[in-house]
Amino acid sequence: MSKNFADLLEKLSQVEKKKVSVAVAQDDEVLMAVKAAKERGIADSILVGDADKIAEIAAGLGMNLADYEVIDVKDPIEASLKAVSLVHDGKADMYMKGLIDTKDFLKSVLNKEVGLRTGKPLSHVCVYEMEGVDRLLFLTDVAFVPYPSLEDKANIIRNTVEICEACGVANPKVAPLAAVEVVNPKMPATVDAAELTAMNERGEIEGCIVDGPLSFDLATVPEAAKHKGATGRKIVGDADILLFPDIHAGNILYKALVHFAKVKNGNLITGTAAPVILTSRSDSFEVKVNSLALGALVADSLKKNNK
Amino acid sequence: MSKNFADLLEKLSQVEKKKVSVAVAQDDEVLMAVKAAKERGIADSILVGDADKIAEIAAGLGMNLADYEVIDVKDPIEASLKAVSLVHDGKADMYMKGLIDTKDFLKSVLNKEVGLRTGKPLSHVCVYEMEGVDRLLFLTDVAFVPYPSLEDKANIIRNTVEICEACGVANPKVAPLAAVEVVNPKMPATVDAAELTAMNERGEIEGCIVDGPLSFDLATVPEAAKHKGATGRKIVGDADILLFPDIHAGNILYKALVHFAKVKNGNLITGTAAPVILTSRSDSFEVKVNSLALGALVADSLKKNNK
Repeated sequence: MSKNFADLLEKLSQVEKKKVSVAVAQDDEVLMAVKAAKERGIADSILVGDADKIAEIAAGLGMNLADYEVIDVKDPIEASLKAVSLVHDGKADMYMKGLIDTKDFLKSVLNKEVGLRTGKPLSHVCVYEMEGVDRLLFLTDVAFVPYPSLEDKANIIRNTVEICEACGVANPKVAPLAAVEVVNPKMPATVDAAELTAMNERGEIEGCIVDGPLSFDLATVPEAAKHKGATGRKIVGDADILLFPDIHAGNILYKALVHFAKVKNGNLITGTAAPVILTSRSDSFEVKVNSLALGALVADSLKKNNK
Repeated sequence: MSKNFADLLEKLSQVEKKKVSVAVAQDDEVLMAVKAAKERGIADSILVGDADKIAEIAAGLGMNLADYEVIDVKDPIEASLKAVSLVHDGKADMYMKGLIDTKDFLKSVLNKEVGLRTGKPLSHVCVYEMEGVDRLLFLTDVAFVPYPSLEDKANIIRNTVEICEACGVANPKVAPLAAVEVVNPKMPATVDAAELTAMNERGEIEGCIVDGPLSFDLATVPEAAKHKGATGRKIVGDADILLFPDIHAGNILYKALVHFAKVKNGNLITGTAAPVILTSRSDSFEVKVNSLALGALVADSLKKNNK
């Protein structure tokens, strides 16, 4: 049972080394992360992009390119298709965005011939280690699915349960969050939360324990849950997965905790045939490295499940 | 310009002492807060409710009831109507919930004969002092208006600007929050945010500077705003008022920061003829006392504006 990023790295040290394929790799911050991942034994990499520019940035970072496979493709779209095809063909285990528009990067992920489609809907998961919480938290969806329907939410839970399992968090507790703990027909988020709970009880969402609606404190703070006298609930401040009613609630919370609480985090796109790392320039260096570690663990889990 | 609760208390020490009327006052936590407010010179109080029970709790708290006006009304509904009428008639300056259902308490607030209706819609404001932010933050609406329409949001801003002014924060900057900083027609929260900005520019929302949509970090963290290269914006990490797209986004964020950031806060219902304090059992003692201090400042401001 991994409780923090140190545990995840320990778990990662026990599996076969993984490889990341980077689309349009001539990005200083991405190369810094890839270099750290190599040095820390997290992952090797294949750098697809403009080889001249990659060499120039690598020199500035003191990176020895002999340790990396570099594939020279100048055009960004072509580079992304080449990079994703390496993952599609099993030559790399996960896929990372470099200096390319998010829209074009996602197009390569969804490409029917060389991409990573599975038929499952894509969603985003943010894995948090936060001071004051004795376990990892899996926040979803704070960045990808804007206004999830009930069915979207069920699929987001399914995607995230797989990530929990890859991280060694078995049978995670899932809290569909809302402003209140009781169903209010005038608040669709609470109705969805109750229905997700019922779907879980009927076996339609498996491998986890869903209990909602829940407020943030009842989902995450055992003392608060006890103070409010939460009885007969399956989650008493001990949720693993925090499911947000929509992207605004998720993203506002995510940004606030990154800046005003003590947090370490990594992020992945899930629902794909292999982990996809889509960090933004506003994400710190450590977030990018943590995301690579998460990706490597999830890639390992996917490989074992497909065997 | 008040930057924290110490500043608010200093400001409060310079105005005439205010009085709170408590509905169904036989509540130990509410009486503790009222006692502290008296001792700290924040406010005097009138306790309306079951006088025997009030006396019993007061004895346990070491409260000298000679310092308080007690009005014996056993029935909770009648007690709330009596308590709110004291504010309506100018015998008290603000109104506080005791041991009564929120629904019944709000009915007394909205009572046409003895209540505190103004014709304005009611909304909730939470005033935050947070480590890492050099000013007070006014969060709205995290507790009262579930899914505000564009017009509701405009009114919530107007209500909150009055609270800022009462706290000595002139011409506040208002950030309508969303997951992103650009308008996306598929995300109604961003469309509303842009429209609120336009309404402010056209003079339809006055006494403040509105700039949205904004993500939480661009609204509150100057370094993040600069790092993302926000140019041509009126808010660069220096928002005073944080307007949430709906109650879920607001409440989840509020609960998270209370538990995982370093925060002091107080809460009020606004849009009423006098401040209304509606704290819940999950609010700490200090939140209740802070709310009384806020209420006293706002009551003073309302009195001066009505003269």
